[in-house]
Amino acid sequence: MKYAEGSCLITIGDTKVLCCASVEEKVPPFLVGSGQGWITAEYTMLPRATQTRHAREGITTKVNGRSQEIQRLIGRSMRTAVDLSSLGERTIILDCDVLQADGGTRTASITGCMVALVDALRTLKQPCGWQRLPILQFVAAISLGKVNDRLLLDLCYMEDSHAGVDMNLVMTENGSLVEIQGTAEGAPYTQEDLLTMLAMGKEGIQKLISIQKECLYYQEGE
Amino acid sequence: MKYAEGSCLITIGDTKVLCCASVEEKVPPFLVGSGQGWITAEYTMLPRATQTRHAREGITTKVNGRSQEIQRLIGRSMRTAVDLSSLGERTIILDCDVLQADGGTRTASITGCMVALVDALRTLKQPCGWQRLPILQFVAAISLGKVNDRLLLDLCYMEDSHAGVDMNLVMTENGSLVEIQGTAEGAPYTQEDLLTMLAMGKEGIQKLISIQKECLYYQEGE
Amino acid sequence: MKYAEGSCLITIGDTKVLCCASVEEKVPPFLVGSGQGWITAEYTMLPRATQTRHAREGITTKVNGRSQEIQRLIGRSMRTAVDLSSLGERTIILDCDVLQADGGTRTASITGCMVALVDALRTLKQPCGWQRLPILQFVAAISLGKVNDRLLLDLCYMEDSHAGVDMNLVMTENGSLVEIQGTAEGAPYTQEDLLTMLAMGKEGIQKLISIQKECLYYQEGE
Amino acid sequence: MKYAEGSCLITIGDTKVLCCASVEEKVPPFLVGSGQGWITAEYTMLPRATQTRHAREGITTKVNGRSQEIQRLIGRSMRTAVDLSSLGERTIILDCDVLQADGGTRTASITGCMVALVDALRTLKQPCGWQRLPILQFVAAISLGKVNDRLLLDLCYMEDSHAGVDMNLVMTENGSLVEIQGTAEGAPYTQEDLLTMLAMGKEGIQKLISIQKECLYYQEGE
Amino acid sequence: MKYAEGSCLITIGDTKVLCCASVEEKVPPFLVGSGQGWITAEYTMLPRATQTRHAREGITTKVNGRSQEIQRLIGRSMRTAVDLSSLGERTIILDCDVLQADGGTRTASITGCMVALVDALRTLKQPCGWQRLPILQFVAAISLGKVNDRLLLDLCYMEDSHAGVDMNLVMTENGSLVEIQGTAEGAPYTQEDLLTMLAMGKEGIQKLISIQKECLYYQEGE
Amino acid sequence: MKYAEGSCLITIGDTKVLCCASVEEKVPPFLVGSGQGWITAEYTMLPRATQTRHAREGITTKVNGRSQEIQRLIGRSMRTAVDLSSLGERTIILDCDVLQADGGTRTASITGCMVALVDALRTLKQPCGWQRLPILQFVAAISLGKVNDRLLLDLCYMEDSHAGVDMNLVMTENGSLVEIQGTAEGAPYTQEDLLTMLAMGKEGIQKLISIQKECLYYQEGE
Repeated sequence: MKYAEGSCLITIGDTKVLCCASVEEKVPPFLVGSGQGWITAEYTMLPRATQTRHAREGITTKVNGRSQEIQRLIGRSMRTAVDLSSLGERTIILDCDVLQADGGTRTASITGCMVALVDALRTLKQPCGWQRLPILQFVAAISLGKVNDRLLLDLCYMEDSHAGVDMNLVMTENGSLVEIQGTAEGAPYTQEDLLTMLAMGKEGIQKLISIQKECLYYQEGE
Repeated sequence: MKYAEGSCLITIGDTKVLCCASVEEKVPPFLVGSGQGWITAEYTMLPRATQTRHAREGITTKVNGRSQEIQRLIGRSMRTAVDLSSLGERTIILDCDVLQADGGTRTASITGCMVALVDALRTLKQPCGWQRLPILQFVAAISLGKVNDRLLLDLCYMEDSHAGVDMNLVMTENGSLVEIQGTAEGAPYTQEDLLTMLAMGKEGIQKLISIQKECLYYQEGE
Repeated sequence: MKYAEGSCLITIGDTKVLCCASVEEKVPPFLVGSGQGWITAEYTMLPRATQTRHAREGITTKVNGRSQEIQRLIGRSMRTAVDLSSLGERTIILDCDVLQADGGTRTASITGCMVALVDALRTLKQPCGWQRLPILQFVAAISLGKVNDRLLLDLCYMEDSHAGVDMNLVMTENGSLVEIQGTAEGAPYTQEDLLTMLAMGKEGIQKLISIQKECLYYQEGE
Repeated sequence: MKYAEGSCLITIGDTKVLCCASVEEKVPPFLVGSGQGWITAEYTMLPRATQTRHAREGITTKVNGRSQEIQRLIGRSMRTAVDLSSLGERTIILDCDVLQADGGTRTASITGCMVALVDALRTLKQPCGWQRLPILQFVAAISLGKVNDRLLLDLCYMEDSHAGVDMNLVMTENGSLVEIQGTAEGAPYTQEDLLTMLAMGKEGIQKLISIQKECLYYQEGE
Repeated sequence: MKYAEGSCLITIGDTKVLCCASVEEKVPPFLVGSGQGWITAEYTMLPRATQTRHAREGITTKVNGRSQEIQRLIGRSMRTAVDLSSLGERTIILDCDVLQADGGTRTASITGCMVALVDALRTLKQPCGWQRLPILQFVAAISLGKVNDRLLLDLCYMEDSHAGVDMNLVMTENGSLVEIQGTAEGAPYTQEDLLTMLAMGKEGIQKLISIQKECLYYQEGE
Repeated sequence: MKYAEGSCLITIGDTKVLCCASVEEKVPPFLVGSGQGWITAEYTMLPRATQTRHAREGITTKVNGRSQEIQRLIGRSMRTAVDLSSLGERTIILDCDVLQADGGTRTASITGCMVALVDALRTLKQPCGWQRLPILQFVAAISLGKVNDRLLLDLCYMEDSHAGVDMNLVMTENGSLVEIQGTAEGAPYTQEDLLTMLAMGKEGIQKLISIQKECLYYQEGE
């Protein structure tokens, strides 16, 4: 993307999300005067990202609760990756536009946004006079589910729509938890299932983080 | 409440939520003809439920992402408590109006709604010709957090606003998970913290479920 | 109510209205710089305040003409009760949330708001350095109607829905008129009916004002 | 007006309101199957009807509480003038567009709508096979106020903005009351003032009704 | 119109548009500090301007794409008629309210607005200390169409609804083009048709401009 | 695109528009029962398609007049390319999402939509039992402008923002006009300029149409 300070087109299976990071020289009212920055996100799907066309949000339909929930999750996740106090009074807005959806769009958005975010931070390194980028840790996300009593990682839409548990994990490179959301669709699930999914998710996320760094030619401590 | 099919005023600390269950003889479009019922929820705060007055949602401000997220959570939780196929093509709407808020309003809403829901189901027992109420299990919810490195159960607003982890658990009486939402506010948290909070939450939720049953003079298998 | 500067839960028959007064240190644009205060009101019904559930205003439906009319009436009535020039540049917002409705919710709101208003004014006495509360007169309201040719005071919903005349009176303690709204539903009514209703209403309002003062342990000239 | 079934341009002082009556072959949901008709009204001001331009309602601003209140009043008034059961399942919509406003626009609208309404009823006489027009009585409206202790009839904007009492009367030709709305702006008013205003208003309304009939070349019992 | 700085009621066939010009002492954000003025327009139809009543825009329906397109066209046309740099930081708002519509409402609005605009500019001549009015050229507009293979000027609604080409021309008095909009409804049209319509339109517009000047008793160079 | 019936990503300079065609088995109300189809379009820009980020339409801002104007133009243009009576009661919706904008997004959208449209028509050939695709003619569009007295074809954003005339042409392969929109930005333009631009545009559009056919491996009469 020619204009965005950072951008990333992430493809996982048939899911494609375009993530753009924009830097704005202002912060939300509650941070004015704090010297601190902010990171926020917007998430939407193109009308024909899905099998049947859906109406554009906010234009022919009401704004969508699901989208709001997702963009709040993306924003929170990205804020844990960065030292906001180093940003100065700037906001980084992450726009996630789902071009094509086949399951896991929220986790793909988080993983892609991390790349766009680092990309954007690099443009600020010189004007802000940073010694190194104010990245606390890389963050990525993955979805899991239980389909016909089997626990699966990174579900496609078909699997996801039959899943009895729907889990989204956001983790850092050292395996700490940023967010866990685990919802029973139908029957509740046991604590053992939860622990197995945590282990599977951790492994998947570590792979994703190494791919993020590769794409960025990221050098530790840069 | 004189008109509602079921109702419950739940008070936890200074948090007070009025939960009303309304039975409507129709279902959302995707269930028409399925013979199955539905449970949904709406959640809002009175303008002066909070320390400083806030604007009414949807009237002087945009609809609130936080409220939408909460009402989706309440609806999902209640749907796991009931055998929807026994309901027939009926919708039970749970209205949660927070009269006063001092932390934990979403978990208090879920716990209170379970009571209002059973109350409403009783009014349907005879017209529907049920042998017993179509309750799969009782469900309750509790909030947890990590404040200054201590893990706390059932936080008030003051504690919650200083918490580094914000966890909401929805569980059944036998300890299965309906929903887990654990968000790092600031630093990510370890898997050990997660396990400790699960154990603490389970104990709290079992106490809440025994109080729910007491309030309802509930008899197993009624 | 723990947070509101003033509050009152008024119960008249099965009608229950929660009235909260909030003090804000600002005034609407047309009063900025005038040194004068303002009083305004918001009125809404909980979804299940009524026999059948109704949609929340402004969220799933358009804002309601009836509610707007009522909140303008409450605001005007309260403004005649107080010397606005003594308030300084402050706004008192009166939130009326009807928990249960069985006729007369607008008049119950006015009568309850007077109590919440005095309650809130007391919290301002010291910070404003008032010798006495800037109350010009107590105000209360009552509904009347003509049902099957009989004039009735304080109608419940069943009576109200059959009334041929629907009258709302807002009066001061000395019997002066703050507001009269008398609507023919169907056939117009005579001037004699109007005069009889005025006399009946005056008596009822005086009783309500003495109850208001009792609840507040109000001392004349405090 | 070339297309409207009935129309009237009423001019009172510098106030000019264009009233159009449209007949639609349907009724609101609550009347479907009742065999009965309905009358409703919409009221708005052109942006430059006023001394300084105001924003168009609903386009650049929120819908206006004042306009909603007025259109409900116009609708109610017109419904008392006509035998709705004779109308069949038809709605007559009265559009009041204030071209220029100098006080009394709501009362001018009612008086003008009565003319447009009779005009529209005449177009229905033959298709409906009426012996005579289903008019119960002519209705007109007038504003009154108390300015510097003098009671005035039919106030212009300058007078109205200084009035201590703002009264609107809607009456039938035989002096019965359709609607009384009397609001104290500032100090409350006495019952004597009310009675004097009723007498003054009655006289004014009878003059307006004779002008309505003249404009329409109305013949009693037509 | 008593209050508007400039006004014009234009009647072309059965089309009637009320054009009011309002002067406001502010400019849109992008012109603040530029010393330059702005001209903008709003266009709407009264509900019963049309053969069958239509809903008021923005109140019971969404804002209308057609109206937005028209008001952007009116604004652009008027801005080419005036030297905006002479206006100072003022906005002239042109309100076009279609009282009755029988084809050509957008072109009638432009032609009428030019008159209201000159009318308003005259009120500014003295306060702004202009030697002469800052009019660059008079502008008028006309519609054309192709109906059953015949090219027609100034179509009424019946003709317009059968037209295979719908052309709107906005021109200055010396025949230069301000705007051309030519749309094929159905089959595309040839370049020859385009040239014929340009010639016919030019002649019509010159007649309209001489009528504009006559109505205004306009003196060249005033 | 995996799900859309037809799709095309058009790149002209740095402008990139994703055009998707969706087929729906229903028509707008005015065509129900007519046996005829419809083609409509939606147009929007991603927030960071532009040099500085803009708010998403309809979510944080009002719906945009410019976008509505453009989508009406795209819809009209596509409807002239297809024999709607052969479509049956189907709607083809063309979604244009501008990924990156550097001038000429509306003309690029039309040119790209033609490709997506043919792509979608091919999927209907067999189910509809067509002998050949119901294409009347290929349509493409191009922008022109006058910059510093030079007439230019296919302007980029920098050129466009300095253009004194802004012209958009939509033409068929045989040089007939579907739409002409020519707007003076500032000074009006002469008829000679208009004719020169028509000739330049015709040549450019013929090149675009040959590229459209190439991309589609289109065979005349298929």
